Amino acid sequence: MSAAPHPLTLPLLSGNRRALAKAITLSESTRPEHEAQAQTLLSEVLPRAGRSIRVGLTGVPGVGKSTFIEALGVRLADAGHRVAVLAVDPSSARTGGSIMGDKTRMPRLTVHEGAFIRPSPSGGTLGGVARRTREAVTLCEAAGYDVILVETVGVGQSETTVAAMTDLFVLLTLPNAGDELQGIKRGIMELADICVVNKADTNPQAAVRAQTELRTALTLLTPHDAPWRPVALRASALTGEGLDGVWNAVEAYRDAVDLLVKRQGQAAQWFDELLREAAWRAFQSGVDGAQVQALRADVAAGRLTAVQGVSALLDGHTDSD
Amino acid sequence: MSAAPHPLTLPLLSGNRRALAKAITLSESTRPEHEAQAQTLLSEVLPRAGRSIRVGLTGVPGVGKSTFIEALGVRLADAGHRVAVLAVDPSSARTGGSIMGDKTRMPRLTVHEGAFIRPSPSGGTLGGVARRTREAVTLCEAAGYDVILVETVGVGQSETTVAAMTDLFVLLTLPNAGDELQGIKRGIMELADICVVNKADTNPQAAVRAQTELRTALTLLTPHDAPWRPVALRASALTGEGLDGVWNAVEAYRDAVDLLVKRQGQAAQWFDELLREAAWRAFQSGVDGAQVQALRADVAAGRLTAVQGVSALLDGHTDSD
Repeated sequence: MSAAPHPLTLPLLSGNRRALAKAITLSESTRPEHEAQAQTLLSEVLPRAGRSIRVGLTGVPGVGKSTFIEALGVRLADAGHRVAVLAVDPSSARTGGSIMGDKTRMPRLTVHEGAFIRPSPSGGTLGGVARRTREAVTLCEAAGYDVILVETVGVGQSETTVAAMTDLFVLLTLPNAGDELQGIKRGIMELADICVVNKADTNPQAAVRAQTELRTALTLLTPHDAPWRPVALRASALTGEGLDGVWNAVEAYRDAVDLLVKRQGQAAQWFDELLREAAWRAFQSGVDGAQVQALRADVAAGRLTAVQGVSALLDGHTDSD
Repeated sequence: MSAAPHPLTLPLLSGNRRALAKAITLSESTRPEHEAQAQTLLSEVLPRAGRSIRVGLTGVPGVGKSTFIEALGVRLADAGHRVAVLAVDPSSARTGGSIMGDKTRMPRLTVHEGAFIRPSPSGGTLGGVARRTREAVTLCEAAGYDVILVETVGVGQSETTVAAMTDLFVLLTLPNAGDELQGIKRGIMELADICVVNKADTNPQAAVRAQTELRTALTLLTPHDAPWRPVALRASALTGEGLDGVWNAVEAYRDAVDLLVKRQGQAAQWFDELLREAAWRAFQSGVDGAQVQALRADVAAGRLTAVQGVSALLDGHTDSD
């Protein structure tokens, strides 16, 4: 490495929140000199990262994710933990993200000195958002945050992405069990290590039924992080009931699963994804741009299928080598 | 092209449903000889594709997508349209998809002679599912289906994917306006050309309020397919009320927007995506597999960041050229 550390490295490692925020902003920049600086910084702090529990959270709209995260986060921060809340929201392809855009969603946690809240990186692909969030996790850990909560939106691909960067995944549901179980995609259920029936105070009986149904559903699924068997719990972010139980389950998960092995697999997968991106850039610099545009026009006009267009380009590329 | 057409080409073009089903199965196969055959078939039928209106549909779980699609589909098929229903459901990364796996969800449409229903291609990435579905659209059109309904799941990236392969996008919502508007991600709203408050019969007053709120929300968004301005409607798949209105809006959209230009842009984008995939395969064949594995292990063990690992590989790759 270089002789002098990056100017943000030491303040970041000392836990300075302003340095952490600046470091994340640097890692989100697409300017080449910033990217190089961010990589220097990341490599310098990497040995100090990894000392946290990384928790992904999701749930359908209306389930009360923000309130739950704030209640849990304040509880943990009050108990001496340092809690970072990040978000992955790639759902808006045309504008920025729609969750975590507003810190007023978690007013108590925002002002808590033991907490750090960061909205989703905006714009770009799910892959791009994922990369920035992974780097933010590393930076938060290096700054001493020992609980990383990564929130994501409703139902879909982003859950898989968040599950690939966290130690365990919490699925929040509502007490109206029957409807709810229909609504939860099986793929999301299968990612969940802990299911929580939130807002249990609004309808305690229904919450118990929902919990029972979730338990039944979970027993039908193959556990993916053996020996851990996913659990179904009840909680109320409003009254605080059950939040300790949720955190106990998180700690039980951490004790049961070999997180080192899991994280190594996740890092390798991340490497694979970045390599794919790099391969694309390398490829672009080696093909005939004019030929690409001509074939692209043929595909647009319906003269060739997209697959034929790509084949024509690659065949031509091979011939000219 | 070759002298003899693919054996499925003529039956497909004559509208044979069995041939269509077989052709889609062929296009979903990952065996190289099947892929080549599928491309031959696709290129042969390509001139006969494109004569349909392609409608994407989404909505949160519980909104009644299946019932709505069936009611609309039966109505259109009864009126002489030939209706194909496809699905994009990449949400389950570990198993197959969770929607359209069961034709019993649309019992009346399934047995209608003017309709063709096909579940989501299973497994693989969103990109893979998208490619198979795009090819299925082409095949259905070539078989004479003039209405293509592409269903997708809840909230997330798959909506963007479906919007990229359809002419217009319909968002289904529920009458409980306030909650509902909070739940709908802004990114999804911005994709919608037609918003429909479904189940309007269950609470007519709330449905009117929901419609008004949707209208207000839509006016705040920049229209993305000028000169079309997204509309908010009410309907009930159960009573059939409002379904004609929804279809009138689809036809009004088709008359207002230059679909040829829109589709050309979509095809070009598809080409770009496939090219990226092809670039990856080309890249893989040109790098040192052992070096990739060594760097991957360094990243997994936390000795290098993923970005550093990729950089090391590419730098080495460049040096050896």
